[in-house]
Amino acid sequence: MNTIGVALKLTLFGSSHGPGVGCVLDGCPGGLRVTLMDIQAEVDRRRPSKGIGTPRAEDDLVRVQAGIVKEVTTGGPIQIFIANKDVDSSKYEKFRTTPRPGHADYPALVKYGSAHDIRGGGQFSGRMTAPIVAAGAVAKALLASKGIHVAAYAQTIGAVMDSEDHDFRTIVSNARKFAVGAASGKTAALMEKEILKARDEGDSVGGAVRLLCIGLPVGVGEPFFDNLDGELAKMLFAIPGVKGVEFGAGFRSASMKGSQHNDQFAIADGRVVTRTNNAGGVLGGLSNGMPVDLRVAFKPTASISKEQRSVDLEKMEETSLAIEGRHDPCIVPRAVVVVEAAAAITIADLCVRGGFVAR
Amino acid sequence: MNTIGVALKLTLFGSSHGPGVGCVLDGCPGGLRVTLMDIQAEVDRRRPSKGIGTPRAEDDLVRVQAGIVKEVTTGGPIQIFIANKDVDSSKYEKFRTTPRPGHADYPALVKYGSAHDIRGGGQFSGRMTAPIVAAGAVAKALLASKGIHVAAYAQTIGAVMDSEDHDFRTIVSNARKFAVGAASGKTAALMEKEILKARDEGDSVGGAVRLLCIGLPVGVGEPFFDNLDGELAKMLFAIPGVKGVEFGAGFRSASMKGSQHNDQFAIADGRVVTRTNNAGGVLGGLSNGMPVDLRVAFKPTASISKEQRSVDLEKMEETSLAIEGRHDPCIVPRAVVVVEAAAAITIADLCVRGGFVAR
Amino acid sequence: MNTIGVALKLTLFGSSHGPGVGCVLDGCPGGLRVTLMDIQAEVDRRRPSKGIGTPRAEDDLVRVQAGIVKEVTTGGPIQIFIANKDVDSSKYEKFRTTPRPGHADYPALVKYGSAHDIRGGGQFSGRMTAPIVAAGAVAKALLASKGIHVAAYAQTIGAVMDSEDHDFRTIVSNARKFAVGAASGKTAALMEKEILKARDEGDSVGGAVRLLCIGLPVGVGEPFFDNLDGELAKMLFAIPGVKGVEFGAGFRSASMKGSQHNDQFAIADGRVVTRTNNAGGVLGGLSNGMPVDLRVAFKPTASISKEQRSVDLEKMEETSLAIEGRHDPCIVPRAVVVVEAAAAITIADLCVRGGFVAR
Amino acid sequence: MNTIGVALKLTLFGSSHGPGVGCVLDGCPGGLRVTLMDIQAEVDRRRPSKGIGTPRAEDDLVRVQAGIVKEVTTGGPIQIFIANKDVDSSKYEKFRTTPRPGHADYPALVKYGSAHDIRGGGQFSGRMTAPIVAAGAVAKALLASKGIHVAAYAQTIGAVMDSEDHDFRTIVSNARKFAVGAASGKTAALMEKEILKARDEGDSVGGAVRLLCIGLPVGVGEPFFDNLDGELAKMLFAIPGVKGVEFGAGFRSASMKGSQHNDQFAIADGRVVTRTNNAGGVLGGLSNGMPVDLRVAFKPTASISKEQRSVDLEKMEETSLAIEGRHDPCIVPRAVVVVEAAAAITIADLCVRGGFVAR
Repeated sequence: MNTIGVALKLTLFGSSHGPGVGCVLDGCPGGLRVTLMDIQAEVDRRRPSKGIGTPRAEDDLVRVQAGIVKEVTTGGPIQIFIANKDVDSSKYEKFRTTPRPGHADYPALVKYGSAHDIRGGGQFSGRMTAPIVAAGAVAKALLASKGIHVAAYAQTIGAVMDSEDHDFRTIVSNARKFAVGAASGKTAALMEKEILKARDEGDSVGGAVRLLCIGLPVGVGEPFFDNLDGELAKMLFAIPGVKGVEFGAGFRSASMKGSQHNDQFAIADGRVVTRTNNAGGVLGGLSNGMPVDLRVAFKPTASISKEQRSVDLEKMEETSLAIEGRHDPCIVPRAVVVVEAAAAITIADLCVRGGFVAR
Repeated sequence: MNTIGVALKLTLFGSSHGPGVGCVLDGCPGGLRVTLMDIQAEVDRRRPSKGIGTPRAEDDLVRVQAGIVKEVTTGGPIQIFIANKDVDSSKYEKFRTTPRPGHADYPALVKYGSAHDIRGGGQFSGRMTAPIVAAGAVAKALLASKGIHVAAYAQTIGAVMDSEDHDFRTIVSNARKFAVGAASGKTAALMEKEILKARDEGDSVGGAVRLLCIGLPVGVGEPFFDNLDGELAKMLFAIPGVKGVEFGAGFRSASMKGSQHNDQFAIADGRVVTRTNNAGGVLGGLSNGMPVDLRVAFKPTASISKEQRSVDLEKMEETSLAIEGRHDPCIVPRAVVVVEAAAAITIADLCVRGGFVAR
Repeated sequence: MNTIGVALKLTLFGSSHGPGVGCVLDGCPGGLRVTLMDIQAEVDRRRPSKGIGTPRAEDDLVRVQAGIVKEVTTGGPIQIFIANKDVDSSKYEKFRTTPRPGHADYPALVKYGSAHDIRGGGQFSGRMTAPIVAAGAVAKALLASKGIHVAAYAQTIGAVMDSEDHDFRTIVSNARKFAVGAASGKTAALMEKEILKARDEGDSVGGAVRLLCIGLPVGVGEPFFDNLDGELAKMLFAIPGVKGVEFGAGFRSASMKGSQHNDQFAIADGRVVTRTNNAGGVLGGLSNGMPVDLRVAFKPTASISKEQRSVDLEKMEETSLAIEGRHDPCIVPRAVVVVEAAAAITIADLCVRGGFVAR
Repeated sequence: MNTIGVALKLTLFGSSHGPGVGCVLDGCPGGLRVTLMDIQAEVDRRRPSKGIGTPRAEDDLVRVQAGIVKEVTTGGPIQIFIANKDVDSSKYEKFRTTPRPGHADYPALVKYGSAHDIRGGGQFSGRMTAPIVAAGAVAKALLASKGIHVAAYAQTIGAVMDSEDHDFRTIVSNARKFAVGAASGKTAALMEKEILKARDEGDSVGGAVRLLCIGLPVGVGEPFFDNLDGELAKMLFAIPGVKGVEFGAGFRSASMKGSQHNDQFAIADGRVVTRTNNAGGVLGGLSNGMPVDLRVAFKPTASISKEQRSVDLEKMEETSLAIEGRHDPCIVPRAVVVVEAAAAITIADLCVRGGFVAR
């Protein structure tokens, strides 16, 4: 369903081609300073860049209709609305009978029947991530008030993989500076080329986003089931296009020895730390005081202009289709801020649940 | 917390060295035939094998204390209890001050204080997966009554990776036949060697489990947030030692083109199918009628006998420790049935929620 | 928090004197016909009547911003917004230091601190029931599609108590016809007098609303805890001013004998019925096929113009206050449709949960 | 379903005539001292008294199988099991075709079909309240550690109504001293007579329980929906036989004026208090610092030996039945401790949720 979270609850609504998209964020403590600019700035980071992004031009103006009075949260639910402006629904009706490969069209039509709003993917649209980013701006402000910060960057796009480590501040500034969301100028240039190449071929390309969270106290997470890693994974898999989530050494752990993987303890500046971070900051589902370090795999954009094989659901016969319309050849650049926002919301929820942030 | 699920709710209790472990499974429809043997047989699959498993000898006798009368479910909550027998708690008290690397000791002590039951890891123990397997036996019976089946196998253990595809029935029989849970005799032998080598070195080794689910109708999953992939991921990350979850092409998606990744549609035997399954059976968070295909990465067992660096939390100074006690040099062989059970419970929950299984 | 329900979830937002109030109703099946007029007509029933209602003049124009396309539900979340127009916040600031007796001011100030939006009671305002009524219109349409109908009426206002029984259709038409929401013209006239008398004395008066639900199948409710009566009670106590909820014989049961109270079974028109309905249609938390029959007690409006004793929270000394501003001398006439809406939402949720309404 | 609560979650299992009944209480902070005696003593209060109670003789020995080590909570889920001993199931099978008036038999058979465990009412049995009382003992210990206490007493039984007010300590001691749970010796004697009279007539009698909670801080409750009164009402309606719940002036509010009902503020001992307590300690769904004061109406025991009219569900024809078996002629004496326990669990949950009790 469209609500997630326990102490900090996010409810989404809207669809790609309806009047707009929005959300309600409930459970944010009162007295937190959040300006409209804070929210708008984050939402703007999600807007497509010229060239590497879709030509659909949405100004994505944020309206806060409840929960913030004079730039301070009231403690009541925060409602945010983002109107749809540049809607062109003409091209979607045919997908009711001929579902697009890689999109939710086919299972959505089976599940919801003719009532499913197929225009722009309806409620399965990547546009639903705009209100997540808006809510994420509030969650980030809440976390920042406790010295907790998240930052993500594009680590992989197609054949370009950034295997270097980066300073947290560098990530924060470069992910904003470079349109692709890369952590360095070098990879940014390569990634941009990779995307433009895919676009020019009428194709698309996948990628991976790495997220770090610093400043988290020890013990965030609610085992056995509502763990820091499990709750983050559930939230991240809700982002359209995500196909994998891993923490620390992640899938590399499978071929490691315990003596390599175990992060051995040390004392630094009077604090308990670990010498490595293969755990990605999570032990037994709880934060262990090291940076949370996770990676999210994104599939290539499903919409491509190359001809593809599909089926005619009415005649039950095979057919083919080519998708016109306006798409991002790679969603990763815009997904960087979405991953940040989604992670911030989940981490903030767990912080409130665990009593680390007063309600 | 210790309850997961919406229409089919699993609640865990117990700890490694207390009187026992158990669960309550609530929401299972009445009238389903489940014998004690069905449950015991699954729980037995999780017991350690000689040589590659821990020497801790638990008979893991299952007691059903509610919800099943004369081998048929009543519709009420099913309670299952598994007593602990072979408990040796003598070696754990020192970990209160000197946490074991790779274990939950450190964050659990910070979060729960001195009340935390550290013996055997308390409620963070892998032993908590025994009641998950027991509940999974019920979920499997429920799914089977609708023609839905899950099967998992050890795909990777250390340096041994099984990159072949396998027939579903082969997986079902081989994963039971070979102690390591491999899908073929060839990899079984290699994996066993890999584990014994790690054991002999006083070390441990990680691995990956692949799970398939066949027979699932189209449309299982409750977007935007309670998706088939997201709910599975949350459940799977609750299994101790899991560091990554991916569907279909998973992390490989990051370097793929849309034209490669998109699973194009076709008609086969009068049904809509896809020509490939890079999606792993999930589109837009919904099952698409193809087999659900996911992979779970497990880290190496944290307990190793090699000396490791730790800290003395009272003196706040660095120290070292070697872990005696009884451990599996690799948890993957026993995790195969846990992954099956966990996935079956989540899939059954979503099937009930979506009306695919009558309550 | 501001979300209620499991399969049909209602999320409220807004406050009395902010930009507006609204809700998200999630889980409504697609394909249900609901016009804007259907919703507006219900919301209009909640508007104050001349004389017996508050002079605050809100046109309460309903805007549906998501989930209904061309008068048919899409299966996605339905978002409804009602702007505030006639806001006069000038008189509330003093209540920050001098809380109004009978209002939430005092505990809200203690709980939420200075961030609490005290204007018009903020999120504790009776105005929050407007979006409940709007969502209720959708729930009623959903129930009606299965032959289930709810109707409520003002049974008691002050000293006027209507102890007669009424035909369901009579209730439906009279509760709309008479401004006080009475089930007969006779009581309507008496109740109106009672209200006007209270108003003229600068006072207010309480009352009780009786609700009937017909057409409900047998077995609606999810024991042990998510019962038909328990879920309804929780929802109804959320309506500002409610002080009691009872089913069937309710508090009269306390002085009854089992031989009087037990509703004995009979067969009528080939159906199992009971000869009396002291159970109010609920046995063991489940609907039993008889009409659900419940009563809700409302306290008198807390705002009265008579001088009252209060305290100055800053100086911690006793003081007095008289409340100017615009109030209903009795909230019962407007609460009739709110009780209907609230009950319809909860009943519809339980119908979806129990599989009586397909998702 | 069988789980209730958010931060403190109670899960029930078992049935009247199965191996036993029990519960899991999850979310209780670690480090709380709770002895087995504390729990057993409360459970013993629920056992039937000679003469006024059922002859079914259960020793109700409590077994704690998880969550408490050496009389201190670990922070993990607490599991409690109470075996059934004195089970006589011979008399119930006929109720499958001829449902007992006033019992859940009929709707349960329709909802759950032949799998429903009808023996002793299965999971609808009053015996399910035994584990609620056990869990309540833990909740009471948690509340007591913060200076919060609950106490209930039988206020009405049949024609005997206790309209006096009582000192909190008097209630605590008398409700334990007198078998009927009355607050004074005078009413105890009258109530006992009333029960014995009903018993001798082969009939039963209803009653009402009043509960007070003192020491609660201001602001407990999570509006808009998870209110102190609404959450309590939902929990209390789960107790078999409850037909009404009211707070403070409750249903009397309906005929009151605002100037009478509003509890005006005053300062006493440097604290804000109200001069009356018509609100029953709840304003806007939040505790206001005054004692929570609520009343619960219980219907007469449904099982009576007098002949009653029922139907044969197979032949679909009318018939009659007389219920032998062993029953309480009035459930109120045993319900007093159940109401206390249920209220304590809900209040403790809201205290944890609101941050009033550290997790």
